[in-house]
Amino acid sequence: MSRFDDSGEGSEHMEADIEAGGQASKRRARGGATARRASRDGGPGLQRPFIRRRIPIYEVLDEEGLSLIEANADRVLEEIGIEFRDDAEALELWRNAGADVKGERVHFPKGLCRTLLETAPPVFTQHARNPERSVQIGGDATVFAPVYGPPFVRDLEGKRRYATIEDFQNFVKLAYMAPSMHHSGGTVCEPVDIAVNKRHLDMIYSHIRYSDKPFMGSVTAPERAEDTVEMCKIVFGEDFVDRNCVLLNLINANSPMVFDETMLGAAKVYARNNQACVISPFILSGAMSPVTVAGTLTQILAEVLAGASFTQLIRPGAPVLFGTFAASISMQSGAPTFGTPEPSLVSYGAAQLARRAGLPFRTGGSLCGSKIPDAQAAHESAATLNMTLLAGTNFALHSAGWLEGGLVSSYEKFMIDQDQLGMMQKMAEGIDLSEESQALDAIREVGPGSHYLGCAHTQANFKTAFYTSPLADNNSFEQWQIEGEKRIEQRANELCRHWLEAYQAPDLDPGIDEGLQAFISGKKEAMPDSFT
Amino acid sequence: MSRFDDSGEGSEHMEADIEAGGQASKRRARGGATARRASRDGGPGLQRPFIRRRIPIYEVLDEEGLSLIEANADRVLEEIGIEFRDDAEALELWRNAGADVKGERVHFPKGLCRTLLETAPPVFTQHARNPERSVQIGGDATVFAPVYGPPFVRDLEGKRRYATIEDFQNFVKLAYMAPSMHHSGGTVCEPVDIAVNKRHLDMIYSHIRYSDKPFMGSVTAPERAEDTVEMCKIVFGEDFVDRNCVLLNLINANSPMVFDETMLGAAKVYARNNQACVISPFILSGAMSPVTVAGTLTQILAEVLAGASFTQLIRPGAPVLFGTFAASISMQSGAPTFGTPEPSLVSYGAAQLARRAGLPFRTGGSLCGSKIPDAQAAHESAATLNMTLLAGTNFALHSAGWLEGGLVSSYEKFMIDQDQLGMMQKMAEGIDLSEESQALDAIREVGPGSHYLGCAHTQANFKTAFYTSPLADNNSFEQWQIEGEKRIEQRANELCRHWLEAYQAPDLDPGIDEGLQAFISGKKEAMPDSFT
Repeated sequence: MSRFDDSGEGSEHMEADIEAGGQASKRRARGGATARRASRDGGPGLQRPFIRRRIPIYEVLDEEGLSLIEANADRVLEEIGIEFRDDAEALELWRNAGADVKGERVHFPKGLCRTLLETAPPVFTQHARNPERSVQIGGDATVFAPVYGPPFVRDLEGKRRYATIEDFQNFVKLAYMAPSMHHSGGTVCEPVDIAVNKRHLDMIYSHIRYSDKPFMGSVTAPERAEDTVEMCKIVFGEDFVDRNCVLLNLINANSPMVFDETMLGAAKVYARNNQACVISPFILSGAMSPVTVAGTLTQILAEVLAGASFTQLIRPGAPVLFGTFAASISMQSGAPTFGTPEPSLVSYGAAQLARRAGLPFRTGGSLCGSKIPDAQAAHESAATLNMTLLAGTNFALHSAGWLEGGLVSSYEKFMIDQDQLGMMQKMAEGIDLSEESQALDAIREVGPGSHYLGCAHTQANFKTAFYTSPLADNNSFEQWQIEGEKRIEQRANELCRHWLEAYQAPDLDPGIDEGLQAFISGKKEAMPDSFT
Repeated sequence: MSRFDDSGEGSEHMEADIEAGGQASKRRARGGATARRASRDGGPGLQRPFIRRRIPIYEVLDEEGLSLIEANADRVLEEIGIEFRDDAEALELWRNAGADVKGERVHFPKGLCRTLLETAPPVFTQHARNPERSVQIGGDATVFAPVYGPPFVRDLEGKRRYATIEDFQNFVKLAYMAPSMHHSGGTVCEPVDIAVNKRHLDMIYSHIRYSDKPFMGSVTAPERAEDTVEMCKIVFGEDFVDRNCVLLNLINANSPMVFDETMLGAAKVYARNNQACVISPFILSGAMSPVTVAGTLTQILAEVLAGASFTQLIRPGAPVLFGTFAASISMQSGAPTFGTPEPSLVSYGAAQLARRAGLPFRTGGSLCGSKIPDAQAAHESAATLNMTLLAGTNFALHSAGWLEGGLVSSYEKFMIDQDQLGMMQKMAEGIDLSEESQALDAIREVGPGSHYLGCAHTQANFKTAFYTSPLADNNSFEQWQIEGEKRIEQRANELCRHWLEAYQAPDLDPGIDEGLQAFISGKKEAMPDSFT
């Protein structure tokens, strides 16, 4: 049924593409019929492959600081321990691995977690159903994925309301079209019009049907994780899935220092199937972790080491990420706050700890607390996103569309954010030092007191020289007035409508589509709706 | 007349304060009567001393790239040359220094500029009339200064109109009150209601009368620069001014590769009086420099080396900064664009070149092209400001209030920007690794599955733990609705009105004030108004 059934070769072929620096993929992407159509019809045009950073990483901690936090995390693991709740299998696995298990509290002898993590790959490929869209997770790669989790949307009429499956599909379509969005994400919004126990089927189907970028699995129950894996087997073939990563899955620690039954259940399904878990302490500093950066880093490291090494107990070699979701809280109101300096410092530090642990790193995105895509939202998002790139983040969830502390997926903000992702991608290319770029001849040609607007070098290079924003207004004040004194949200709204109109679904093998639909129908018919 | 007349000791005392890490200054600032009054009356409260960065610098170029650009700049200086226009004295000085002068074009033998720059101080103090507000320029210091140059304002009624001296005074007052604004700046807006040939007198007086932070001098004509120095002598004493820096002065190169009569005239006055010149190529890449980052960096370096070394011909040892104003242009419309990746790369690279040249570095700020303080303005400003901090910039002009490509000083944007400066300042403190901050006892006390909200460690640390924004809304959606669904500009508008109401002028010695007023009256009476 799947073109991935002869997966061994297919897999190596895709690896080769990715190892070749994404260049092959880039050329093909530029030539893609979908991209051409989209561009002609008012869409965004060419797709950019995942980022290979050619700029240095920014690090805030020195060797002494890193060693200190690692030593403290080791003490937390050994002396305080981490709870694995309501999961006898997990506790048994830990006991057999040599941990000291007291009730549900697991105490880890020094070095146990790190020894277990030696089997986890530092770099791997997450495959997309379109090989051109496969992404590298780890190393010098940065992959942007959309917002995850909001029950609400702010729609194109400016209304804040519960999200539907139509919204979900729209965000999948937008992520498919956005040139610097390398991933389709997971719960781009929560489609609350579908029964809780069936919703995952429509969500996974939407990612497959309306996009060809890689995506994330359901983690709300072990059986839903199983369904996700089954659907991937229909698309990629059973053997291929067992031998390759086709799913990234968000496993949040229930901080402080707890992994609960739901998350452990999903983690076990995915790790057993060789799919990637993103072990992510969900931290609002001052509530789920100490009110200080150093204390928060210590707890994050302990939680990730415990959770990530657990996946290696399930299946050695299963891909796993060091995740960090860092925000702080307002000490006046208790509300979460985003884009402030302390969470940035946490994430910068966590990225360093992840590299030392040999794991790909997830953090950041375009986080904000604002209710609307105003300057507050932008400042908070920019502070988070700049950090995300410079920290050397490998997988950046929430890179576009996040609003109101993650309660809302916003169409307008998605468009504004995805423009910023394009800027980050250009930034990551660093400084070209080729002879052409050095431009000595241009400087000589133009000389003192003239200008470069018409010179040969400018003519030859201007098309690719600067990132061009589709949303920023740089016209004269008078022109801006004539055009109605629009705010950027209004331009984002218009562009979003254009994109959704211009959207064209990527091809999907009809046999695969039928297989998926049959699977979904069978599952849905087998159980009554549940909304809790 | 001045309390600086016995300047030798006073000077050393101030240096000592600054060398002590700004801590002494911080303590006194916190205890200041003005700050207490301001805080009680709805003002911003305590002032923060200039930033001493405790985080690493971010560098985009390696040794090979830096050497390449330096070698190219040397070739530009020698083979192409820089024009010093309409200034026979300048050409004569260059001739005597060993340069090859052809017409107005100066060709510099390899190494000449760098040899001359050996007398320029890598770090110096700019003195404020209040010693607590003196700032270090260079080294690990970052100093934020407000927007410079706009002829228009966007006022608190949302109207865009020509700026007046009242606006000028308002921005001086706001910069005086903003806790992380370390400098009063220069032309915070252009007071077009005052005659061109007299305006500088009122501007300099406003900086002295309505603030006690350091400020910038007039550069629009040599005689206005002379007036600025004279007024400083009244405030600081003649000897003190001759031996210390009390003025920073913006000397723009007329890129590409020209210094004009006006700028040279002002530069000569200031350098001769031992005051600091900020030699700043004003670059819109693609127009005033090559369309590439590497080419732009080459030209910037050549221009700065020529301009900065010229100040050392005037007076060896006079303080001078390596300045860079970097933006790019839209290749569609020719309009300047801000906050895009390429100017950030230019500034990161220029910062490295400045450090290698042994000069303090100026760049960045909160630049944007947007007409209003919306998400475009914020994204562009944030991209520029994040770079400004991480590049290790020493002096950041345009840090607050810049709107519409520098045509407009905006009250609302000033307030939003100054909040971000506070975030940068907190970020610059880096990660505290003290035992208290490590928080191991807190992690032990709280343990798995609980929370940190009430624990002893949180109680002891929460007040200083997180940067608290006076403008960000982090309340619930419902609360935000009840409060009128305000955008951040509206909150900024309200806070700005509060500040201006709560403003109280710092003390100024009545004798000095009389001296200044007499000087200004004398000057104004001696010439008719000119508006050109």
